[in-house]
Amino acid sequence: MEQPDLQIRGFVGAAVPSGQKKDGEPDLALLFSEREAVGAGVFTTNKVKAAPVLLSEAHIQDGKVRAIVANSGNANACTGDAGLADAIKTADLASKALGVPIEEILVASTGVIGAPLNMTGINKALPNLVSALTPDGIDDVARAMMTTDSFQKVSRFNGNTGTAPYSILGIAKGAGMIMPNMATMLAFIVTDLSIDRDPLRQGVLNAVGKSFNRITVDGDTSTNDMVLVLANGAAQNGSLSPEAYNEFVDGLGKVMEDLARMIVEDGEGATKTVEIRVKGAFTGDEALIAAKTVANSNLVKTALYGEDPNWGRIMAALGRSGITMVENEVDIWIDDVKIVSGGLGKGATAEKQASERMKERSYSITIELHQGMFEDSMLTSDLTHEYVTINADYRT
Amino acid sequence: MEQPDLQIRGFVGAAVPSGQKKDGEPDLALLFSEREAVGAGVFTTNKVKAAPVLLSEAHIQDGKVRAIVANSGNANACTGDAGLADAIKTADLASKALGVPIEEILVASTGVIGAPLNMTGINKALPNLVSALTPDGIDDVARAMMTTDSFQKVSRFNGNTGTAPYSILGIAKGAGMIMPNMATMLAFIVTDLSIDRDPLRQGVLNAVGKSFNRITVDGDTSTNDMVLVLANGAAQNGSLSPEAYNEFVDGLGKVMEDLARMIVEDGEGATKTVEIRVKGAFTGDEALIAAKTVANSNLVKTALYGEDPNWGRIMAALGRSGITMVENEVDIWIDDVKIVSGGLGKGATAEKQASERMKERSYSITIELHQGMFEDSMLTSDLTHEYVTINADYRT
Repeated sequence: MEQPDLQIRGFVGAAVPSGQKKDGEPDLALLFSEREAVGAGVFTTNKVKAAPVLLSEAHIQDGKVRAIVANSGNANACTGDAGLADAIKTADLASKALGVPIEEILVASTGVIGAPLNMTGINKALPNLVSALTPDGIDDVARAMMTTDSFQKVSRFNGNTGTAPYSILGIAKGAGMIMPNMATMLAFIVTDLSIDRDPLRQGVLNAVGKSFNRITVDGDTSTNDMVLVLANGAAQNGSLSPEAYNEFVDGLGKVMEDLARMIVEDGEGATKTVEIRVKGAFTGDEALIAAKTVANSNLVKTALYGEDPNWGRIMAALGRSGITMVENEVDIWIDDVKIVSGGLGKGATAEKQASERMKERSYSITIELHQGMFEDSMLTSDLTHEYVTINADYRT
Repeated sequence: MEQPDLQIRGFVGAAVPSGQKKDGEPDLALLFSEREAVGAGVFTTNKVKAAPVLLSEAHIQDGKVRAIVANSGNANACTGDAGLADAIKTADLASKALGVPIEEILVASTGVIGAPLNMTGINKALPNLVSALTPDGIDDVARAMMTTDSFQKVSRFNGNTGTAPYSILGIAKGAGMIMPNMATMLAFIVTDLSIDRDPLRQGVLNAVGKSFNRITVDGDTSTNDMVLVLANGAAQNGSLSPEAYNEFVDGLGKVMEDLARMIVEDGEGATKTVEIRVKGAFTGDEALIAAKTVANSNLVKTALYGEDPNWGRIMAALGRSGITMVENEVDIWIDDVKIVSGGLGKGATAEKQASERMKERSYSITIELHQGMFEDSMLTSDLTHEYVTINADYRT
C-alpha cells in the first residue's frame, strides 16, 4: 500500500521517549493545531473507563480543541483517583508548554492496565515534545502510538468544497498488543476543513457507526478506545453547501473504514480479514446482531483460520443469536460461491470451490435470511494459534 | 476418579456399529427401560434444531418414555425434511424391534452437520442392537456416545426415600469433537425412583439450571444439545414425601453438576477448569450476565491458559457486560488471594501469589461487586493452542 502524504495544513506533531515503554522508544506524542480547531470524539462504551477517556470526554464537550497528548506503554486504566490526577497533570503540563487553556487539551493512553504513569518521565519530556513539533511530525505521532502493531495505520482523503480544496488525514493504532491487557483502538483524524461543531459531531457519529463500530477482533471492548476528530479551518472554505458536507462525511467515512480495515488486518495473530454480510433480516437490529454473533463465534473464527467452509457453524451461530429466522430459508455464500441453499448444504463441489476462496487473505461471507429488507455487516479476523500465543503471554 | 457402578434396576443398554463413524467403532446405542417409565427433557435453545431434537421434544411431551436411541458420528442437523424422516424412521425401527409405541422412543445424535444419516446401516444394526441389550450394557452406551471425548463421563447418586433405596445414574458426552462442526452436549440420566411426570419435570429444570446451564467452553450452543431423564419406578418406593423429593432433586443436581464439570474438564483443548463467581450483584440476572461475560471473554480465557492474574481483563469484561457497577467498588480474588481491592490492583506480591494458585488445574475467581445481594457463577475452561488446532482442523 502506498503511504499517503502525512502533512496537513495547520497541524504539527512530534513524539519523544518518556519512560512508559521499557525499550526507550518514543512513547509520548503530541498533535497540535496551530489554529483554533473544533473537535468531536467517540469514546468507549465500557463502564470501566480509563482516566484519559474520562478527561477527554469532559474537555471535548464545548467543541474547542487545540491538542492531543497520547502515550503508549501505559493505559492509565484501573488507576483510580491517582490516575485521573495524572491525566489532568499531563494535560496541565501540555497546556503550559503550549500556552493554550487546559480544557483544549485531550489526552489518550494505551498500554498496561493498573500501573501508574511514569509522571517524572512525562514532566521531563513535555518541553522537548513541544519544541520538537513540526509539520512532518505526524508520522512520528503515528509511530509512537504503535505498540505491537505490525504496520503504521494511516489514511488520507482529498476533497474540494467547491470553494477550496481540503484534506482529511487519519492515523490509528490497532488491535495488537502483547504487554498490555487488551487491544485498544485509538484513532486521531485531522482535517483543515472549516466546519461547525454540530455538523462535525453528526458526521463523526455517522462515520464511526459505519467503520469502527463494524469491526471485531475478539469481541472485547477496551477501557481506552477513542476516536478524536479535529478540524482547524485552515482551508478557509467558508460555509459548506449540503453537497460539500455530504462529500466530507463520505470522505470521513472512507478514512475511518480504511483505518478500521487495517486494524482488523493487523488484529492479534490474524491471517484473514472477512466481511460477514447479513441480508434479508427482519429488522436492522437483527441484521447487526446476526452479523456480530457470527463474527464473534470462536467456532466460526477457527474455521476461517482452517480455511474450512464449515457452514454448520454459521447456521448454529445464527440459531443462537436470537434473531427471527427459519432454518430452511437461509442461503449462504463464500464470496460468489453458494454453499447453502434453503438451509441445506450444496454439496462437496460447492464446498471445494468455497474452500479455494477461503485461501485468500480477504473475502466475504454473505448470509441471506429472507425474513425482511434489512442488512448489516461486520469485519472480523480469524482465531489463530498466534492469537493464543500473544494473549497467553505473561505481561512481564 | 473411581468409576461408579453402571447397573441400575430395570434398565438395559447396548451399542453396535452402524456405519456412522468411519472407524467401524460402535456408534449406535440403545438405552431401554424394561418397565414403563416417565421422562423429562431439556433441549437446545438454538433456533436451528437438529431433527432428533425436534422429534424427541415431541415424543417426550406426554411423559411416557421407554427408550433412547443415540448415534454418534452424524448430528442429523441442517438436513431438512429428509433428516426428520430419517429420525422418525430410526424411532420406528426401534419401536418395532422393541415392541413399544413409536412415541415412547427418543432419538439423539451427535457428529457431522449437514450430512444424511447412514440409514442402511441403522436399518441393519437395530435388530442386533436390541438383541444385545444387557443390564451391564450402559457402559457400552456411554462409550458409543463418545466422539473425541478423552474420558467416559458417568456419575451416580444413591439415595433412600425412607421406604426404599434408589439410584440416579448419569452418562454424558461432552465438548470435544474434531470431525464434526461443533461441540454437542448429550446427557442421559436414569433412575429407578418412582416419581410422577410433573415433579420430575420440575426437578430436572431445577437441576439443569444449576449445572449444564452454568458451564461454557466457547459460548457456542449446539444444534443438538439435550438432557434426557428417565425414571422407571423399579424402586417401588410409593409416593414421595417432601423430604424424599428434595433429596432426589439434590441428587439429580449432584449428578448433573458432576457431568457438567467433567464436560468442562474435557473441553476442547482445555488445561484449566475455573469457576467464575460473581457476588454482590444488583440483580440475579446481572450476576449471571457478569459471570457469563467474564467466562466467555477470549482475553480472560487466554490469560487463564497463560496462568496470568490479568485482572485488567476481568475489569474490562465486567465493564462491557452492561451490568450495574462502580469501578472503584470492585474486589477480585483468585482462590483466596485478593488481587483487586476497590478497583485497584493489590500489587506485585498479591499477583505473584495469585499466579501460583493459577498453576492448579482447577480454581475459582471471585468478583465482589458491592451493588446488591445477588450472586451466580459459571464454570469455564481456558482458551488454548489445542482448542485452535482442534477447531481449525478441516472436517474431512
